[in-house]
Amino acid sequence: MKIAVDAMGGDFAPEAIVEGVILAAAELPEHITIVLIGKQSALQPLMQKHSAEAVANIELVNAEDIIEMSEHPTKALSQKPNSSIGVGFKLLKDGQVNAFCSAGNTGAMHVGALFSIKAIEGILRPCIAGFVPQLTGGHAVMLDIGANADCKPEMLAQFGVVGSIYAQYIFGIDQPRVALMNIGSEEQKGSLVAQAAHQLLKENRRINFVGNIEGGDFFEGKADVIITDGFTGNTMFKLGESFYKVASQRGLSDEFLDKTNYESVGGSPILGVNGNVIIAHGISSPLAIKNMIGLAIRQVESNAYTKIAQALS
Amino acid sequence: MKIAVDAMGGDFAPEAIVEGVILAAAELPEHITIVLIGKQSALQPLMQKHSAEAVANIELVNAEDIIEMSEHPTKALSQKPNSSIGVGFKLLKDGQVNAFCSAGNTGAMHVGALFSIKAIEGILRPCIAGFVPQLTGGHAVMLDIGANADCKPEMLAQFGVVGSIYAQYIFGIDQPRVALMNIGSEEQKGSLVAQAAHQLLKENRRINFVGNIEGGDFFEGKADVIITDGFTGNTMFKLGESFYKVASQRGLSDEFLDKTNYESVGGSPILGVNGNVIIAHGISSPLAIKNMIGLAIRQVESNAYTKIAQALS
Repeated sequence: MKIAVDAMGGDFAPEAIVEGVILAAAELPEHITIVLIGKQSALQPLMQKHSAEAVANIELVNAEDIIEMSEHPTKALSQKPNSSIGVGFKLLKDGQVNAFCSAGNTGAMHVGALFSIKAIEGILRPCIAGFVPQLTGGHAVMLDIGANADCKPEMLAQFGVVGSIYAQYIFGIDQPRVALMNIGSEEQKGSLVAQAAHQLLKENRRINFVGNIEGGDFFEGKADVIITDGFTGNTMFKLGESFYKVASQRGLSDEFLDKTNYESVGGSPILGVNGNVIIAHGISSPLAIKNMIGLAIRQVESNAYTKIAQALS
Repeated sequence: MKIAVDAMGGDFAPEAIVEGVILAAAELPEHITIVLIGKQSALQPLMQKHSAEAVANIELVNAEDIIEMSEHPTKALSQKPNSSIGVGFKLLKDGQVNAFCSAGNTGAMHVGALFSIKAIEGILRPCIAGFVPQLTGGHAVMLDIGANADCKPEMLAQFGVVGSIYAQYIFGIDQPRVALMNIGSEEQKGSLVAQAAHQLLKENRRINFVGNIEGGDFFEGKADVIITDGFTGNTMFKLGESFYKVASQRGLSDEFLDKTNYESVGGSPILGVNGNVIIAHGISSPLAIKNMIGLAIRQVESNAYTKIAQALS
C-alpha cells in the first residue's frame, strides 16, 4: 500500500509535514510506504536529519512547483502540472498510490480530485466529511462540511447514502444511524431544503434514517452519520473544533475535549470520488499529519469508495 | 415599569417560573413590578409559600387557558384568547406592561407578537436574537437564531442594522462591529445568499461591517453582532450552548464556560417588533427566568425597539 502525502501544502510545510510523516512511518507495518511529494531540494535536508531506519519506508517524489493557499484552484492546477498537488493526483489516477493527502489548498484538492480520478458515476456532488467525536464513544461522520455551500434536497439525501456506507466500512457499524441536522425534531421543521430532504431520507430504504437532530445533539451520540449542507456543516464543524481551543485557553484538560482537537483525526475525506483523497487544515501539526495518514490507511483497507460506487451503480 | 411573565409556559411551569420571579423580585427596585400571568388557582398556592414582603412587587393576572408546547401557534392563539400568552400580548399591546416574557410555545410567542404589537414598519421579517459569550468579555448578539429558516440577502442585511442598534443600546457600544457568519473570510466565499448579503452589508454606511467570520470565531471576540440565517444560527447557537452541558458532564468547571449555559442570559428577544418580547428555553430553570427578567428590564430601559423603529422610518 502506498499513501501519498503533499509535503508542500499547509502553513508549516514542509517541516511539519515531514515531521508528521516521520512520526507515522515509525509505526507503519512493512507493506505500507509513504510517498512524500515535494521539492527535492527542500525535502532532502529535512530527511537527512533522520536515521536511515526512520526514513526506510518513505519514498521521495520530486515536484518542482507549489500551489499556494491563496491561488485560484482551477487556474493553479492547469498552470502548475508539476506542483505537489498536480503530481499527487497524477500518481493517484495512475494507480501508483492508493491515497493522496494534503494540508494545502483545499479548493485545488477538490478540483484536482474531480479532474483526475473524477466523481463516482451517479454522484450528484462529491462532499467533504468530518469526524465528530461523540460523548458515547467513537465518532459520527458529518457531511457535507464545506464543499457545497448550497445544497438541493437530492444532494442531502445522497449524502445519507454515501455517509452510511462510509460509516459502515470505516467504523464497522452494521446499520449506521443517519440523522438530518435541523432546527427542530418534527419533520415539518426547518428550511425548505431540510424539509424536503427529510422526506427523501425517510423514504430511502437503504439507510437507517433516525430523523432530525439539533445543534445541541452534536456530541450526544444520537447518530453515526450527520447530514447537512456544506454551509451549516462547515460553521458547526469549526465551532465544534473550537471547543478544544477554548478549553485549552481556559487551562482545562479533558479526554473528550481533546478529541474535538482537529489534530486527533487530522483529516477530512472527500467522498464521492473514485479514490481516497484526504484534506487537512492548513495549520496542520506533525501529529495531525500522522493521524491523517492513519485515516488514509483505514480508508484504503476498508475499500469504502468502491463500496459507494457499487451502491450507486 | 411592568414586566409581564407567562407563569404557565415551559416544561417546569408554573413552579420554576414562580421561583424565578421570586428570585428576581428580591433584587428589584421599587418602581419595577412583575406581572405574573396564569391560572390563579395554580399560582396562589405557590405564592402563599412566600412572605408578603417577597411577593410585594408581584401582581397576579388571571389567565384560565394554557397554550401547550406542542400546539399549532396560530390556531392555539385564536382559539385561546384567555391563555397566558394571549393575555400577555393583550396587556403589552394595551401598554399596560412594558415587556412580555415566556418560556412557553416559541411559535405562539412569535405569532402573538406579529398579531398584537406587530412588526415595525419597514422590517422585512422579525427575528430572534441570541447572546453569545465572548472570550474577550461580554457578549455578541447573534441574529437570526431560529425565526427564519430561509433568509434572503436583504433580510440578512437588515439583521445587520437591527443587531447593530440593539448592541449599541443594550451593550452601550458606540459602533458595534457587525460580522457575517460564513465559511471563509474572503467576500466571494459562501452560499449564494451569504455572498449577496456580504455585498449589501458592505455597502451599508449605517453599520460598521467588519466582514466574514467563521465557525471557529464564534467565541473569539471578533464581532459584537453576528449575522446569519435562522437555520445556521439556530444550529450554531444550540451547539454553542451545549459547551456548558458537555463540560459539566465531564466534571469541568470554568467561569467562561458557565456563560455558555443558557441560564446565564435566560432569554432571547424577538427583534423587529413594536415592543419588548423575550422568549426562553422550555427547560428554563428559576435562575434562567430571573435572568430573562433582568434582560427585559435592560431592554425597557434602553428603549432599543423604538431606536430600531426610528432608524427604519
